[in-house]
Amino acid sequence: MFKDTNQEDYGSTRVEKDSIGEKKIAADSYYGINSIRARENFNISRENVHPELIRSIAVIKQAAAATNYELGLLEEGKKDAILEACSEIINSNVAEELKLDAFQGGAGTSTNMLVNEIAANRALEILGHKKGDYHIIHPNDDLNKGQSTNDVYPTALRIAVLKLLVPLTESVSKLQSALQAKEKEFSSIIKLGRTQLQDAVPITLGQEFSAYAEAVNRDRWRLYKITDRLKKINLGGTAVGTGLNTSHSYIFKIAKQLRNFSGLSLSHSENMIDITQNMDIFVEVSGLLKAAAVNLNKIASDLRLLASGPAGGIGEIRLPAVQAGSSIMPGKVNPVICEMINQLSIEVICCDQAITMAARDGQLELNAFGPLIASKILKSLEMMKNGIDKFVDKCIKGIEVNQDRCQQILDNSLAVITSLVPYIGYDQASILAREVRESDKTLRELIVEKNIFSKSELEEILKIENMTSPGRKK
Amino acid sequence: MFKDTNQEDYGSTRVEKDSIGEKKIAADSYYGINSIRARENFNISRENVHPELIRSIAVIKQAAAATNYELGLLEEGKKDAILEACSEIINSNVAEELKLDAFQGGAGTSTNMLVNEIAANRALEILGHKKGDYHIIHPNDDLNKGQSTNDVYPTALRIAVLKLLVPLTESVSKLQSALQAKEKEFSSIIKLGRTQLQDAVPITLGQEFSAYAEAVNRDRWRLYKITDRLKKINLGGTAVGTGLNTSHSYIFKIAKQLRNFSGLSLSHSENMIDITQNMDIFVEVSGLLKAAAVNLNKIASDLRLLASGPAGGIGEIRLPAVQAGSSIMPGKVNPVICEMINQLSIEVICCDQAITMAARDGQLELNAFGPLIASKILKSLEMMKNGIDKFVDKCIKGIEVNQDRCQQILDNSLAVITSLVPYIGYDQASILAREVRESDKTLRELIVEKNIFSKSELEEILKIENMTSPGRKK
Amino acid sequence: MFKDTNQEDYGSTRVEKDSIGEKKIAADSYYGINSIRARENFNISRENVHPELIRSIAVIKQAAAATNYELGLLEEGKKDAILEACSEIINSNVAEELKLDAFQGGAGTSTNMLVNEIAANRALEILGHKKGDYHIIHPNDDLNKGQSTNDVYPTALRIAVLKLLVPLTESVSKLQSALQAKEKEFSSIIKLGRTQLQDAVPITLGQEFSAYAEAVNRDRWRLYKITDRLKKINLGGTAVGTGLNTSHSYIFKIAKQLRNFSGLSLSHSENMIDITQNMDIFVEVSGLLKAAAVNLNKIASDLRLLASGPAGGIGEIRLPAVQAGSSIMPGKVNPVICEMINQLSIEVICCDQAITMAARDGQLELNAFGPLIASKILKSLEMMKNGIDKFVDKCIKGIEVNQDRCQQILDNSLAVITSLVPYIGYDQASILAREVRESDKTLRELIVEKNIFSKSELEEILKIENMTSPGRKK
Amino acid sequence: MFKDTNQEDYGSTRVEKDSIGEKKIAADSYYGINSIRARENFNISRENVHPELIRSIAVIKQAAAATNYELGLLEEGKKDAILEACSEIINSNVAEELKLDAFQGGAGTSTNMLVNEIAANRALEILGHKKGDYHIIHPNDDLNKGQSTNDVYPTALRIAVLKLLVPLTESVSKLQSALQAKEKEFSSIIKLGRTQLQDAVPITLGQEFSAYAEAVNRDRWRLYKITDRLKKINLGGTAVGTGLNTSHSYIFKIAKQLRNFSGLSLSHSENMIDITQNMDIFVEVSGLLKAAAVNLNKIASDLRLLASGPAGGIGEIRLPAVQAGSSIMPGKVNPVICEMINQLSIEVICCDQAITMAARDGQLELNAFGPLIASKILKSLEMMKNGIDKFVDKCIKGIEVNQDRCQQILDNSLAVITSLVPYIGYDQASILAREVRESDKTLRELIVEKNIFSKSELEEILKIENMTSPGRKK
Repeated sequence: MFKDTNQEDYGSTRVEKDSIGEKKIAADSYYGINSIRARENFNISRENVHPELIRSIAVIKQAAAATNYELGLLEEGKKDAILEACSEIINSNVAEELKLDAFQGGAGTSTNMLVNEIAANRALEILGHKKGDYHIIHPNDDLNKGQSTNDVYPTALRIAVLKLLVPLTESVSKLQSALQAKEKEFSSIIKLGRTQLQDAVPITLGQEFSAYAEAVNRDRWRLYKITDRLKKINLGGTAVGTGLNTSHSYIFKIAKQLRNFSGLSLSHSENMIDITQNMDIFVEVSGLLKAAAVNLNKIASDLRLLASGPAGGIGEIRLPAVQAGSSIMPGKVNPVICEMINQLSIEVICCDQAITMAARDGQLELNAFGPLIASKILKSLEMMKNGIDKFVDKCIKGIEVNQDRCQQILDNSLAVITSLVPYIGYDQASILAREVRESDKTLRELIVEKNIFSKSELEEILKIENMTSPGRKK
Repeated sequence: MFKDTNQEDYGSTRVEKDSIGEKKIAADSYYGINSIRARENFNISRENVHPELIRSIAVIKQAAAATNYELGLLEEGKKDAILEACSEIINSNVAEELKLDAFQGGAGTSTNMLVNEIAANRALEILGHKKGDYHIIHPNDDLNKGQSTNDVYPTALRIAVLKLLVPLTESVSKLQSALQAKEKEFSSIIKLGRTQLQDAVPITLGQEFSAYAEAVNRDRWRLYKITDRLKKINLGGTAVGTGLNTSHSYIFKIAKQLRNFSGLSLSHSENMIDITQNMDIFVEVSGLLKAAAVNLNKIASDLRLLASGPAGGIGEIRLPAVQAGSSIMPGKVNPVICEMINQLSIEVICCDQAITMAARDGQLELNAFGPLIASKILKSLEMMKNGIDKFVDKCIKGIEVNQDRCQQILDNSLAVITSLVPYIGYDQASILAREVRESDKTLRELIVEKNIFSKSELEEILKIENMTSPGRKK
Repeated sequence: MFKDTNQEDYGSTRVEKDSIGEKKIAADSYYGINSIRARENFNISRENVHPELIRSIAVIKQAAAATNYELGLLEEGKKDAILEACSEIINSNVAEELKLDAFQGGAGTSTNMLVNEIAANRALEILGHKKGDYHIIHPNDDLNKGQSTNDVYPTALRIAVLKLLVPLTESVSKLQSALQAKEKEFSSIIKLGRTQLQDAVPITLGQEFSAYAEAVNRDRWRLYKITDRLKKINLGGTAVGTGLNTSHSYIFKIAKQLRNFSGLSLSHSENMIDITQNMDIFVEVSGLLKAAAVNLNKIASDLRLLASGPAGGIGEIRLPAVQAGSSIMPGKVNPVICEMINQLSIEVICCDQAITMAARDGQLELNAFGPLIASKILKSLEMMKNGIDKFVDKCIKGIEVNQDRCQQILDNSLAVITSLVPYIGYDQASILAREVRESDKTLRELIVEKNIFSKSELEEILKIENMTSPGRKK
Repeated sequence: MFKDTNQEDYGSTRVEKDSIGEKKIAADSYYGINSIRARENFNISRENVHPELIRSIAVIKQAAAATNYELGLLEEGKKDAILEACSEIINSNVAEELKLDAFQGGAGTSTNMLVNEIAANRALEILGHKKGDYHIIHPNDDLNKGQSTNDVYPTALRIAVLKLLVPLTESVSKLQSALQAKEKEFSSIIKLGRTQLQDAVPITLGQEFSAYAEAVNRDRWRLYKITDRLKKINLGGTAVGTGLNTSHSYIFKIAKQLRNFSGLSLSHSENMIDITQNMDIFVEVSGLLKAAAVNLNKIASDLRLLASGPAGGIGEIRLPAVQAGSSIMPGKVNPVICEMINQLSIEVICCDQAITMAARDGQLELNAFGPLIASKILKSLEMMKNGIDKFVDKCIKGIEVNQDRCQQILDNSLAVITSLVPYIGYDQASILAREVRESDKTLRELIVEKNIFSKSELEEILKIENMTSPGRKK
C-alpha cells in the first residue's frame, strides 16, 4: 500500500515535461507535472479536493482499464497494475492526504490528472519501474485512455454523491427514529402550544416531536428518491459528450465495468452532451439538502426555545449537558449541539447558493466550475451526516421534560379560551380574554361568575383530551 | 359581480370594532376592520398579496361553507350567499384589485381575514343586507367557521402553487418542443465545440440544442412529479394542527368538498401538526424552480455568446430582433430577451433564498413568515411561466444559423487534433498543436509534410461524421 | 399636467417605425414605438420600473437639453418645451403610472427610450404639435442628444439612490431616537440578561435598548458616509465611457447643469469607462442596507422574544397591539410589526443577493443587468424607509415594560453566581450552581449555610448596581 | 517552543473534571477537558478554527495577564509564564495544528477555552509543573481572569480581521498596479468595444484595463477605510458587556496593554453591550469583500472572453499558459487562473451570505454564531489575498495582445457608424446600418456611393483618435 510522500523532501529528481515546458520533480514523488503545476497554481485555500471524489475517479480508472483491456487496447500486465494501484487509492487513506486545492480552475482536469499521475506512478512502481517512466505507463495515453476529464469528472461526482448519500440517508433515518421515540415518550405531556411566540392552544409534547419526525421523514424520502436521477452518466462522451475517440461498444462496456467496480446501478445517458455541460442535477440534490437543513434548523431552534431559561425562558425541556457553557459563568450549560446544527444549516444553504451560482455560470459545451460544485455538495453531504449523528446522540436522545413547568405554564395561560368559541362566538370570547388580562381572576372563575356556563358544563367543554384532537362531536 | 370600491371615497360610514377598539369604515366598503387595520399596518412595499392566493382562500371558504352546511352548522341561505360571494371572487378580477401588502406580519391572518371580510360583506349584500351587519353573517363565526388562518393559509398556498404549476409545466413543455425543433433543424450544421470558451472539438448545432432540450425535459419532469407532494393539506387542523374545535367528520368532509370546489385531488395529511408549522415543501418546490432557472440561464447565456458580434464575437447564430438596441448606436440589435431570462434566473434564485430563510425561521407550532414564502413562490411560478413564453416566442423560434461562419471557424481551428491522439499519442499531438500555432501552416499541411499520415489516411481519420459521434471502430 | 393614457383605448392611430419595422400606435399615446415594443417584450412580472428612476432620467433630460441649448445644438423653443415636459414628469404622478416591466433586458435602453418618447411627445403637445411628429422633436436626436443609455442609466440610478437615501437616513435617525427614548425610560429596570437563550447575568432593560440604538447609529452613519461615493457620474461618456460624440465642454457643462437641476453635488468621474461598466458601488450601498437589515432583524426578533407569552414566554415587555392576532383564537395579539420587519430583512438581504449576482455578471464595456440592479436597490431603499417608519410608530414607541415579571425572573435565576467567581473561583462556583439546581434552596441560602460568606458580606457583593457595570474596586 | 502532541498516543493519563463530570486525558496533552469535550462534540467538518483567531486570542491573554499583574491580581511568575506560553502560540505553527471544528456551537467558548487550556498547560510546563496542575495556573481563574468568551471572542475576531486586512490590501494594491501597467502597455491598441456582447464603438485595450484598475482602486480604498471601525472593542465588558467582575481601571488598562501586544490602535467602545451582541460590523466588512469579489469576477470573466478562441472566440488577448488544459485535447490551454478567480468570487459571496444569516440570527445579549462568522470572514480575507496574488503573478502580468486580431475585428465591424449620428441623425444611420448588413459593401463605400459625405470629409469624421475620446469640437 502506498503513502503519499512529501514532494519537498527530495534528493534525487526526475524531469517531466508538458506543453508548457519542463519541470524537476522529486524522483520518488507520485505527483507528476500536471499535479504539481496545479498545486502551485491553485493553492489559495485550506481546502483540498474531497477524498471521496478522488476515490470515485480511481473507480472510473479501474473500469476504463478493464474496458480497454477487454477491447484489446491495453495489455494485461498494465491493466493489472493499474487496477491494483487504483484499488490502493480507493481503500487506503491516501486520498485524504493528497494535496490539491479544492478551488482549482480547469473544470476538474487537475483532479483527473492527479489521479492519472499518481495511479500511473504507483502502477509503474508495482511493475518494478521508476516513477516517471511514462513510456511504459502513461498518465494520459494509458490511465486516461478513451476518457476526457469532461466525462470522467461529472461521472465521478455522481458516484461520490451516491456514495455519501447512503450514510446520510441512514443518519436521517436514525434521526427520525430518535424523534419518534421522543414522540412516544412524551405522548401524554400536555402543554401550551405557541404560535408567533404567543400563547396559543394546548398540544402535547409528543405531538411536537411527531411534527419534527414527520418533516425528517420527508427528507429521508426525498434523499432516497433522488438517487435514481443521479445514475445517468456520460462516461464515453469524452470531450464534449459526442463520444469522439470512443466506440459504441466502449461506451456500453465501460458502463458495465463501472457498475461492477462501483457497485452502483449506473447507466449511460441517452444524451451525454447534456450531462457533460449541465449541472442542474447537483442543484436539485443540493436543493433537497437545503430543505433538510431548513427542517434541522427549525428543530434545533425550537429545542433551544423550549429549553431556554431555566429561570428566564420557557424551560419545558432540558437538553443534555455536553460541555461547560461559559468561561466566566459557572454552571452555565448552553445548547451547543443545537447551535452547531443552526450553523450547519447556514453552511448547507450557502453551499447550495454556491452550487447554484456555479451551475448557472456554465458555458457552452462545459461547466468550468465543476470543482466548486463538487467541493460544496460533498461537503454538505458529509457535514450533514456528521452533524445529524451528533444531534441524535448528544442531544435528541437525552432530552428530558420538565413536566411541572409544562403544567404550570398551561395553567397560567388563556390557552383554553379558543375552545369556547363554538359556544359563545369569537367576539364574546375576545371580550372575555381582555377581561381576564385586566382582572386578577382566572378565566374559569370569570366564566362561572358571569354565568356563561355552569362549572360542570365548563369541565365538559374543557376536557383536556378534547383540546389536543378534533374533539367536537360533529 | 362585485368590484372593489375605494375605501377613501366615503360619505357615509359604519363603525366596526375588534379587540383593539373601534374604527370608522366607509359604509360601502367590502373591507372590514381587520383588513383595514392590516392595510394601514403593512403598507411598506409596492407589492400586494398575490391574487391566486386570494382566489385559493375563497375556494376554501366555499368548501368550508358547504361542509358546515352539511353538518348543520350553517343555514342554507347563508351558505348559498357565501358560495356565490366566493365564486365572484374566484372568477372576477377583484383579487387583482384588492390592496394588502405582501410583506404583512401575522402569518397570513390578515389575508385570511381580508377574504373573510370581503366575502362576508358581499354575501350580506347578496342577501339584501348592509355591509357590516355581521350579526347576520360574521367574518369569523361564519366565514371562518371550523377554520384557523393556520390551516387555511398553508392549504390555500398549496392550492395556489398547484394552480400555477399547470401553466408553467405547459410552458416548459413548449420550450422543450421549440428547442427540439431547432435540434432537428440544425442537425447537420457542423461547428466548433467550445469548452472553457476555448476551441475544443467538433459538434453539431443540433447537438447543442439537444442538450438544452434534455435539460428542460428534466425540469418538466421534476415539476410534474412534485405535484403529488403538494396535495397533502392541514385543513381541519385549525390553530396548531391538533384539530381543536373541529370533528373527525368535519376533517374528512371538508377535504372532500375541497376536492370538489378546487378540482384538485387533495387529501388531509396524517400529521396536520407537521404541515401547520413546517414549510419545507415550498423550499423543495422552489429548489426545483431554481434548478430550472439555472438551466434557463445557461441556455440564454449560451445564445448570447453564440450570437455575439456580428464582427467581434462568435456570430454562429442570429437571434430575432425584437426592438432597437441602443439609444445612441444606430442599427444595434441586442439579445434583450435572453437578458431578461438571465435576470429572471437571478430573481428565481433570490426568491428561493428568501423562501429558504423564511422557512428556516419558523418557530414552534407555526411559521409566521408564510406571507413572504407565499409572495415569493407565487411570483417565481408566474414570472417563470411568462418569461419562458416570451423566450419561446420572441427568441428560440426565430433563431437562425450563420452556416458560413460555423464552417469558417471550424476550418480555422485545431478542433480535429484530438482525433489524432489514438494514433500518435497525447504528447506527440501536443507538440504538433504548438507547431501549428507557431507556424503559418495548417494542421493538415504539417501532418502530410511530416509524413505522419498520407493525405488519404488523414481524410479517413478526419471524416467529419466520425468526429461528432463515437466513431472509433472499437 | 399630463396623464398617461391607456394605449389600448384607441380610435385613431399613428404609425411609427424603427429598425425592426413599423407599428401602429394610438394617436394620443405618449408611448412611442420603443416603449411599446419594450412593453410587449418584457411583460413578465407585476413590477414596473421604479418611478424614482424615471424621474431621475427626466432630470438628466433637462440637464442635457439645457446643455445642448447652451452649446447651440438645440433651439430655445424645443429646449423650453423639453424642460417643461420633463418637469411635469418629475412633479406629477405620471412616473407611478407608466407601465414598463422592471425585469427588462437591454441594459436600461427601454427605460431611457420610454422617457425620451413620453417627454418628446409631451413636448410636441406643449408646442401644439401632434404626438409622433418626431421630425420636430425627436426622441433620439433631441431628447437623447449627446447621451447614450449607457451614461444616462448609471447616472440616473445614482440620482435615484441619492434621492431615496435622504428619507431613509431620516427614518433611521428617528428609529435611533425612539430607541434612545426607551433606553432612558427603562434605565432603572433591572432584569436577567440572556446569552444563548440561557440565563446569564443581570442587565437593565435600558442597556438592552442602548445596544439597539448604538447599532442603528452605526447604520445611520454608514448611510450618511456612502453618499459621497455615489456622486461620481459618467454622463458624457456615452456608449462605452469614451465620450464618443461629445466634447469636453459638453461633459463639464452637463455636470454643472445636472447639479443645478438635481440639487445634488454630482461631478463626472475621472474614469467614465469604469463607471459605465462597473456596478460595484451599488453592491457596496446594498451591502450597507443589508447590514442595517441585520440589525433591524436582530431588534425585531429580540422584541418578539422579550414580549413572548404572556404565560408561556418571557413576557418582560409588551408590544402595542395593532390588530387582532388570530382568526380563531380570541384576544390573541401577535407581534405583527416585528414579523413584518423580519420579512423586510429577508427581502433586503435577497435584494442584495440579486444585486451582487447581477453586478458580477457584467461583461466588457457594459453591465446588461442594470434594470435588475435598479429595481432591487430602489425597492430596498424604499421598503426599508417605510418599514422603519412603521416599526417606530406602531411598535417601538408603544413598548411597555412588565416590571414585576422582570424582577420575578431575576429572582428565580442564578444570575448572581458569576459575581462570586472573583471570591471563590470558577470551579467552586460551578459546584454551587449544580447544588442549587439539585436542591430546593436558593443560592443565598446555600452560601450562608455553607459559611462561604456571611449574610452581610454577601449583600455587599451582590449589590445590584455592581452587577450591571464594572463594579469591581480594581 | 511547544508542539501539539497527539492526544490519542497516550500511555499515562491525568484526570480533569468540569460541571459535566470527569475525563481521562493523556498526561502530556496540552488540551484540557473543555477542549477535548469540544473536539468530541463538534467534529463534523474538515475545517478547523482559523489559526489567526487562535493567535489573536493568545494576544488578548497576554494583555489580560499583563493587566492583572499590574493590578496585583496575578503573580509575576505566573504572568511571565503565561506571556511566554502565549508568545509561543503566536509565533509558532501550533495554531495551524490545533484541531477544533470551525462549526462549533457555544459562541466561541470552546475556542477561548482551547487557548486558555493550552496556554495554561504550556505555562505550567514552563514553570516546571505538570500539565493539569491547575491549582497552580488555572485555565479559567488565571488565563481567563477578568474576561469572558463574550468579550474575548469579538475582540479577537476584530484583531484577526485587522491582521488579515493588511496583506489583503497590499495584494489589492499590487493588482491595481499590475492592471495599470497593462493600461499603459496597451494604451495605443485600438479595438472594438462591446456592449451586451454586441459590437459597439471603438475603445483602446488600455482603456479597458484602466476601468479594471479603477474598480480595484475603489476596493483598495474601501478596505483601507474600514479598518477604523474595526478598532472599537468590548474587552472588559465580560459576559454581556456590562463589565461584571471588572473595574473601570481594568478596562482602560487592558485596552492599553492590548494596543501594546497587538500593535493595533484599539480602544474600548463606549457601548460594550452593543459590541457584545451585534455582529453588523462583520457584515459590513464582508460586504466590501463581496464588492471586491464582484469586481474580480468581472475582470476574470472579461479576460476569459477576450482570450476566447483562438479560432472560435474573440482572441484579442492571450493569457499566460500555466498548465496543460485538457487530459484529452492536446495543446489546449485554458484560462484556469481566471476560472479560479470566478470560483473565489462565488465563495466570497457565499461566505457573505453565511455571515449575514449568522449575524441576523443573534439573540438578546449575544450572538451564538460567532464561530461561523469568524470562520467565514477569515476564510474570505485569506483566500482573496491568495487568489489575487496568483491572479497578478500567473495571469495579469503575462497578458499579451494580438494586435492584428484587434484591428481585423474593428475593420469588419460597424463600430464607426455611431460617429455619423451627429451629422445624419439616428434614423438615417439606422437605415445605413441595415443596408451594410444586407449588401456586401463596406460602410465607407456605401457612404461615398450615396454621396452622404466625400471621402475626405469621411476621413475627418472617422479619425480614430476622435472615436475613443470626447472628440466633438463642441
